[in-house]
Amino acid sequence: MSELDKFFNPKSVAIIGASHTPGKIGYAILESMKMSFNGKIYPINPNISEIMGLKTYSSVLDIEDQIDLAIIVVKSEIVASVLEECGKKKIRNVIIISSGFSEIGNKKGEDELLNIAKRYKIRIIGPNCIGIYKRNLDMLFMPREKLKRPLDGYLSLITQSGAFGSAILDFCAYNGIGVSKFISIGNRIDVNEIELLEYLNKDVQTRAIGIYLESTVDGKKFIETAKTVVKNKPIVIFKAGKTKKGTEAVASHTGALAGEYSLYQAAFKQAGIIEAKNVEQLIDFTNILAKQPPLQDNKIAIITDGGGFGIAAADAAINAGLSLPEPSPILSNKLKNILPPYASIKNPIDLTGDATSERYANTLDVILSSKEYSGVLIIALLQISTLDESIITVIEEAKKYGKPISVCMAGGAWTHERAVKLELSGIPVYPTPERAAEALAILIKNKLPLL
Amino acid sequence: MSELDKFFNPKSVAIIGASHTPGKIGYAILESMKMSFNGKIYPINPNISEIMGLKTYSSVLDIEDQIDLAIIVVKSEIVASVLEECGKKKIRNVIIISSGFSEIGNKKGEDELLNIAKRYKIRIIGPNCIGIYKRNLDMLFMPREKLKRPLDGYLSLITQSGAFGSAILDFCAYNGIGVSKFISIGNRIDVNEIELLEYLNKDVQTRAIGIYLESTVDGKKFIETAKTVVKNKPIVIFKAGKTKKGTEAVASHTGALAGEYSLYQAAFKQAGIIEAKNVEQLIDFTNILAKQPPLQDNKIAIITDGGGFGIAAADAAINAGLSLPEPSPILSNKLKNILPPYASIKNPIDLTGDATSERYANTLDVILSSKEYSGVLIIALLQISTLDESIITVIEEAKKYGKPISVCMAGGAWTHERAVKLELSGIPVYPTPERAAEALAILIKNKLPLL
Repeated sequence: MSELDKFFNPKSVAIIGASHTPGKIGYAILESMKMSFNGKIYPINPNISEIMGLKTYSSVLDIEDQIDLAIIVVKSEIVASVLEECGKKKIRNVIIISSGFSEIGNKKGEDELLNIAKRYKIRIIGPNCIGIYKRNLDMLFMPREKLKRPLDGYLSLITQSGAFGSAILDFCAYNGIGVSKFISIGNRIDVNEIELLEYLNKDVQTRAIGIYLESTVDGKKFIETAKTVVKNKPIVIFKAGKTKKGTEAVASHTGALAGEYSLYQAAFKQAGIIEAKNVEQLIDFTNILAKQPPLQDNKIAIITDGGGFGIAAADAAINAGLSLPEPSPILSNKLKNILPPYASIKNPIDLTGDATSERYANTLDVILSSKEYSGVLIIALLQISTLDESIITVIEEAKKYGKPISVCMAGGAWTHERAVKLELSGIPVYPTPERAAEALAILIKNKLPLL
Repeated sequence: MSELDKFFNPKSVAIIGASHTPGKIGYAILESMKMSFNGKIYPINPNISEIMGLKTYSSVLDIEDQIDLAIIVVKSEIVASVLEECGKKKIRNVIIISSGFSEIGNKKGEDELLNIAKRYKIRIIGPNCIGIYKRNLDMLFMPREKLKRPLDGYLSLITQSGAFGSAILDFCAYNGIGVSKFISIGNRIDVNEIELLEYLNKDVQTRAIGIYLESTVDGKKFIETAKTVVKNKPIVIFKAGKTKKGTEAVASHTGALAGEYSLYQAAFKQAGIIEAKNVEQLIDFTNILAKQPPLQDNKIAIITDGGGFGIAAADAAINAGLSLPEPSPILSNKLKNILPPYASIKNPIDLTGDATSERYANTLDVILSSKEYSGVLIIALLQISTLDESIITVIEEAKKYGKPISVCMAGGAWTHERAVKLELSGIPVYPTPERAAEALAILIKNKLPLL
């Protein structure tokens, strides 16, 4: 069993600094844990005897049972002393949410924590982080109405920025993208991105890993580890601090030295890591990699009910390295038989503005059961009156062909609601043809079968 | 008065092919018009005497009053004969929604229409289009629950693809982006993108023009016209058919020859047109250009409550050609006085995860009232518990400094709802730092004051 396992699967958790004052971080964390966690929760606060109906202790040393994990949310000045108590209580896994360390120049405080950790064999995540989020282990202190929690999924995230991570989680929840494990590493004085990569590599509930990275603790080791991991599952990284200005901002954010972006780029390439060029791509790519099988070659078909979007998708697909071969005469005939004469049976295939779900279903069957295409890019515009709710089921059922599918649904509220349904069924949906095409193209780089 | 004026400001409209059968296009158009248009509506259908409580006529020739605009939605075979009747009735403005012309090879049918139009001095929009959308002139046949209608705004759109246009309108409505005039030109046998540019140039309710373009009818004239227009108001174009494959798809979509993309790019540059590199940028750019004053130089400040997003924004701003000068010692002192010691007063300015609306207000005041910065990029993450609803008002009120503001709000449902409110108040909001930064940078190219 990994030393990190109890960070993710504890049976009992102490929250040191739990508060009964709404609005306080120590209150919000306890509330999130109560709503998500099935094990025992021990609030620690010397001034109160009960919070939210839970017996509250002065110190972890007052608890008789074994504690698997401690979450520390006290002021920076007393983090060391409560950590020492964790050590005495034989707690081996500690997440320190508290800030006030190297990010404000207090390196000495961190050294003190590390000394205690070494003495008691404690593993630490943080400090200056927002901890872990799993569906059944939610320690996020952001209010649930402001930051919706995502459902379970196969995408895991490591982030050096808590705020970045929380906005991304909120985005995932809003769009029906499930998350397996989310880890905010903060100042990562102990557990870092490299060790977490190793951990997630063995985690069967993780199929793809997304990372928000400002800097790595050890470039060489990072590359070596990533090289091993990408043999099993893809890694997508958004690197912040690309420009001189961005690099300077990294220094004042987490106190880390970001180094040259070009070196990071070279390292990513060498290790087989996929780089997200912008924030959108971090989730766009990790999501499709977690959900869809690899694209065996670059031959894909575009199927749409909107001519203009079909063209935009064709441009985007070609620019992303995909190819759009015309259907063979045999396949063309099959398409002619199932489509009205005004439909375009070239590639992109335009089912036109009176397309129905049935027309989509028949076309998907012809295309995906043929050896001429390895995947499909669907640009379904739901504004047209002929396209009813069953289009979601039709696309979902096309998973049976075992080939990758990427979908663009562009529009507003109606479209978003249906896009979320499709996303929840395991098909990635994007709001523009460019993003859908680029995501599909990423699957060529991923030669791994779905776990 | 322009010959085109009655397309946009008719007092009476005949709908030729109005239907009383729900689901039919002729029904949906009549319904949309009834819900939006304050003038007289005359449904034309020889088989029915009344639709939706409106007296229905066999032909426009049976109507006594003057008709400013006719919308034709009959089968392609009889478009010519009803157009002839429009001519006899002295209707000078006709929108032909019906398809079945050059997009399926029926060039002859279009020539026939043009002959009739010439004979009677009729101006035609279409055929094969979805017509015009204005808040008070809605002829869209897509159901309102599927395609929400945008509010009034100062952004106008010309589109060669109806489906593309309708998805974009839906996107605008969903995100609180107002639209002035939307024109789907279809096969544009008469009124084309060039004449509409001239018209919108004189339209006081249009501050920026976005175009979905597959091809232009006259390259030389297009450039000349655009050159004149951009002296008054910016033009943003998304060009579809960039690749060989995309160009071929254009041919089967509208029957037009798209020509070489490189020629279009050169023309856009020569004419001072802003090119949208993807679908998102078409609205991202047109929207900010319609709403915000020009950026006098590239010196901007980034203000955020999320360190990671601040770094990503810094990278994006620099890459977009903006510069992020550090505040002078005097300005730094002012910031120190209003911010907690752990805030970063470098640029990006990080108000940190316990930021309040008041902290934002004070910082915006220091930055925007200083001569050191010409604009501001705000990355407001609303997930944090300390940031309440008043952040929207705070940012809205910063308009008083007369400098451009671009905002990124990343996240889910809570965030989206508030982003829409801010958008409606005249401040453009984007879901990622990259898009917010690129939009702000576009304002440098726009040297025009707001109308």
